[in-house]
Amino acid sequence: MINNYELYNPTRLIFGENRIEELNQYLPEKARILFVYGQGSIKRNGIYNKVLNLLKGREFIEFSGIEPNPVYETLMKAVNLGRENHIDFILAVGGGSVIDGAKFISAAIPFVDDDPWKLVSDHLEIIDSIPLGTILTLPATGSEMNRGAVISNKVTGDKLALISEKLFPVFSILDISVLKSLPKRQIANGIVDAFVHVTEQYITYPIEAKLQDRFAESILLTLIEEGSKLYDNIEDIEAGSNVMFCATMALNGVISSGVPTDWSIHMIGHELTALYNVDHARSLAIILPALYSFKINEKLQKLVQFAERVWKITKGSDIEKASTAIKSTENFFKSLGIPTKLSEYDIDLDYTIKSIIEKFESRGIEYFGENGIISIKDIEDILHRAN
Amino acid sequence: MINNYELYNPTRLIFGENRIEELNQYLPEKARILFVYGQGSIKRNGIYNKVLNLLKGREFIEFSGIEPNPVYETLMKAVNLGRENHIDFILAVGGGSVIDGAKFISAAIPFVDDDPWKLVSDHLEIIDSIPLGTILTLPATGSEMNRGAVISNKVTGDKLALISEKLFPVFSILDISVLKSLPKRQIANGIVDAFVHVTEQYITYPIEAKLQDRFAESILLTLIEEGSKLYDNIEDIEAGSNVMFCATMALNGVISSGVPTDWSIHMIGHELTALYNVDHARSLAIILPALYSFKINEKLQKLVQFAERVWKITKGSDIEKASTAIKSTENFFKSLGIPTKLSEYDIDLDYTIKSIIEKFESRGIEYFGENGIISIKDIEDILHRAN
Repeated sequence: MINNYELYNPTRLIFGENRIEELNQYLPEKARILFVYGQGSIKRNGIYNKVLNLLKGREFIEFSGIEPNPVYETLMKAVNLGRENHIDFILAVGGGSVIDGAKFISAAIPFVDDDPWKLVSDHLEIIDSIPLGTILTLPATGSEMNRGAVISNKVTGDKLALISEKLFPVFSILDISVLKSLPKRQIANGIVDAFVHVTEQYITYPIEAKLQDRFAESILLTLIEEGSKLYDNIEDIEAGSNVMFCATMALNGVISSGVPTDWSIHMIGHELTALYNVDHARSLAIILPALYSFKINEKLQKLVQFAERVWKITKGSDIEKASTAIKSTENFFKSLGIPTKLSEYDIDLDYTIKSIIEKFESRGIEYFGENGIISIKDIEDILHRAN
Repeated sequence: MINNYELYNPTRLIFGENRIEELNQYLPEKARILFVYGQGSIKRNGIYNKVLNLLKGREFIEFSGIEPNPVYETLMKAVNLGRENHIDFILAVGGGSVIDGAKFISAAIPFVDDDPWKLVSDHLEIIDSIPLGTILTLPATGSEMNRGAVISNKVTGDKLALISEKLFPVFSILDISVLKSLPKRQIANGIVDAFVHVTEQYITYPIEAKLQDRFAESILLTLIEEGSKLYDNIEDIEAGSNVMFCATMALNGVISSGVPTDWSIHMIGHELTALYNVDHARSLAIILPALYSFKINEKLQKLVQFAERVWKITKGSDIEKASTAIKSTENFFKSLGIPTKLSEYDIDLDYTIKSIIEKFESRGIEYFGENGIISIKDIEDILHRAN
């Protein structure tokens, strides 16, 4: 079976050492810039001052305070600030949350006829957007080179995706020099986030997309080898640069070209984050082993391929290979200091199961995962295994 | 060691079955189109009629006759036709030569102040170009998703590259339905062409670009597995679709991001084509084994990696592994019906050596390959090995 697809990604990636210094080459010559960032880590690590220096002599205004899992209410303040100042370019400096937030701002500023939240909730087509450039400070989500964003709404309790070709950044600077300022916990989270992005697009039912499979395996192998090196020594700039490119390639459209995608781990994981503020990557590390062992028969062919090609498991029956691969993945997460069991968090299992099923029901979801192979009732079994 | 790089590729790839039918979705609504193609194979296989039908009601003119290794003199006729008719979009239907030719036409039409050949010979910056869309009929060169073209000049005897971001096609339709109309010889050539594109960007001195290495290996592995299947059965549409994506990914900027590149096989191979009209891919199949065995020590680390990861060779010393990998590659080419020895062609070895060295000298080339590890004097040894 072959699926038709489009592969399109016009973002210019500017990768390497000290690339931030070249910022002005990529910014439009005359622009009124909205410079957005998060909750101040760029002030502590010196990137903020570097950017301010580079912006000297330019017209710009700042907006800070975009939170992890960026929130509509906060972002609307930036939208109003941008409109008042007639800005025509957005520069986002931060990780995936800041870039996701900037994408919403970019679409919301020109959308003056109605509440911009409708772009998210009602999937309105984005006709116009303010061009966006980014400086990535944390390799993880891939938002720097894709057309998606995830935005939360405090009032409705929703956490929803915004997807449009108008949201591709014009450029993204991946300056590997930023890596050494990152806390180890964030590096570990980034590696797991990228890893699970890949498995969601790879451990599905099989299809005739042989190169996409091998590309996915390439990213997983490199994350395992180089991610481990980086976690052991965050000064290892070469390992860091490899991890950084992996995180971008994990979610920029190449490996998903014409393949089925799952995203069920993310769907359940998002709810753990919503309920208990578990770090996004950590929620994925809990759900992945449980969900794959629960759906081992449905995903067997790809799990065996994953076992053989990524974990080099050659012995045993197919089920044994698949189980060992799931275990190896879990051990890899643990080796990065990431807990993989719900019981390691202070939560009420029964309440969690009930809440997540209710949440899915309220959204009208009965079945999910590739080909709808997971029923919302399965969440109980999956979370018991994850405990 | 880490090299800085930019990754930028705005071409929209439209991949799959019966995608040609969607042509009008991707063409600008009101356009005066120059429809260019080659020497008539699209008339024999029905693609020409299909395109004519789709263009019904649109303003367009045709230009046919772009030859393999497209020639300046021919292309200038298309440039004049395009100028006279004030065309504002080019649709190229064909393989790499037609698309390369169309890229030259696209840059030459707006370049009215001087002879457009100077864009090629003097590397003048391309400021403006006519937007180009393509329908690919032969997977091989990757021109459908890159910014390069190779153009020949009959008068000067030059065969030179034209490279600019203005030359990226706006869209390229990769309709796998076209594959079944291809002669076996062209399929084999396309597989070898894509394979050697990858090795030129991979079998070099090692560098810290682990994901790019694994992506390169992914393309090679897929070409070996799926290329063999396709050659054995050209009706195998699934194998064909995998080969087609490989050929595009082999030369669209992803695997070359931040890595050293060689291109010495192409440099010598081009001269064999110029002297004896050897098919481009076939010239590469002759030079690759000879050149790699000659430079086995300089390229040892990557040849061993190639041996282990692509050919799964685990036994022997490093030199033995590298030699076996070179031999396996040669056998792969032979299995596709491609001769790998100069002596299989009717040529004069001494004259060939002398002519190629003189040609390189006349261009001021003393050393070539990555890090200039090959001297023009080495051509003698390489061609003796290739005989």
